[in-house]
Amino acid sequence: MDWGLFAIFLAACGAAAATGAMFQPGDWYKSLSKPGWTPPDWLFPIAWTILYISSAVAAARVGKIPGSQYALAFWALQIALNTLWSPVFFGLNRMRAAMVIVVFLWLAVCATMIAFFQLDTLAGALFVPYLLWVTVASALNASIVQRNPAPAAP
Amino acid sequence: MDWGLFAIFLAACGAAAATGAMFQPGDWYKSLSKPGWTPPDWLFPIAWTILYISSAVAAARVGKIPGSQYALAFWALQIALNTLWSPVFFGLNRMRAAMVIVVFLWLAVCATMIAFFQLDTLAGALFVPYLLWVTVASALNASIVQRNPAPAAP
Repeated sequence: MDWGLFAIFLAACGAAAATGAMFQPGDWYKSLSKPGWTPPDWLFPIAWTILYISSAVAAARVGKIPGSQYALAFWALQIALNTLWSPVFFGLNRMRAAMVIVVFLWLAVCATMIAFFQLDTLAGALFVPYLLWVTVASALNASIVQRNPAPAAP
Repeated sequence: MDWGLFAIFLAACGAAAATGAMFQPGDWYKSLSKPGWTPPDWLFPIAWTILYISSAVAAARVGKIPGSQYALAFWALQIALNTLWSPVFFGLNRMRAAMVIVVFLWLAVCATMIAFFQLDTLAGALFVPYLLWVTVASALNASIVQRNPAPAAP
């Protein structure tokens, strides 16, 4: 692993993590109808901390390998989409717009995982928990949209 | 230029652009004291459209060159920070937190530009207007902080 690359990718994760810290679940989120399998609030920061570090380690491994440009481009796409989701969901309370974003995030994480597996098995494997977590997040967002049919905020 | 890479980098710019579209300057921004040299509101989407396309072209050129991993890592960092700024400034109205973000964005854009210049002169040159614009945005954010000394929103 290249530690300089790791530091840059981790800093990018820091930008994404800042949205999670600054756009917290508030009264609006508490008031929503959520499915019984909704993960508890305390689990989200723990899960994201592990996933951000794993994704930065994976990118720092892959970055050293020739021909990694598509993998790194997909990595950039997923971190931008990841940064976008929290402000739209928790900031604007736009659950339907957030649903569109989380579907694109799922596709971007999946594409990154596949590209990483082609270069380095461990790097690809480090993205598996991330894809699983975004799958849960997508299902939760979809369930919230279905359970709360009031018109979305403008 | 690699068109597949261009499409992925442009999609990442789309995530950043979405924050500009969804977190618009509202009554709060209008009510702020701003310096005389503040660019007019209509200029921002035009400038950003040009800068996003230029940055995606630059990344797609650089991505084809062996040894571009640091350049692409810095590109990922700048797009994540770019996505973060609008929600914090226009969504949370936290001008001081946004100031910290825009300084990190300036540093990330500068690092990306330098890394791009080392690989491809045109790619580096395509980042010069972006760095100039973020310099203006940083100065504007700093001036707004100075001119509006009321306590920041919590």
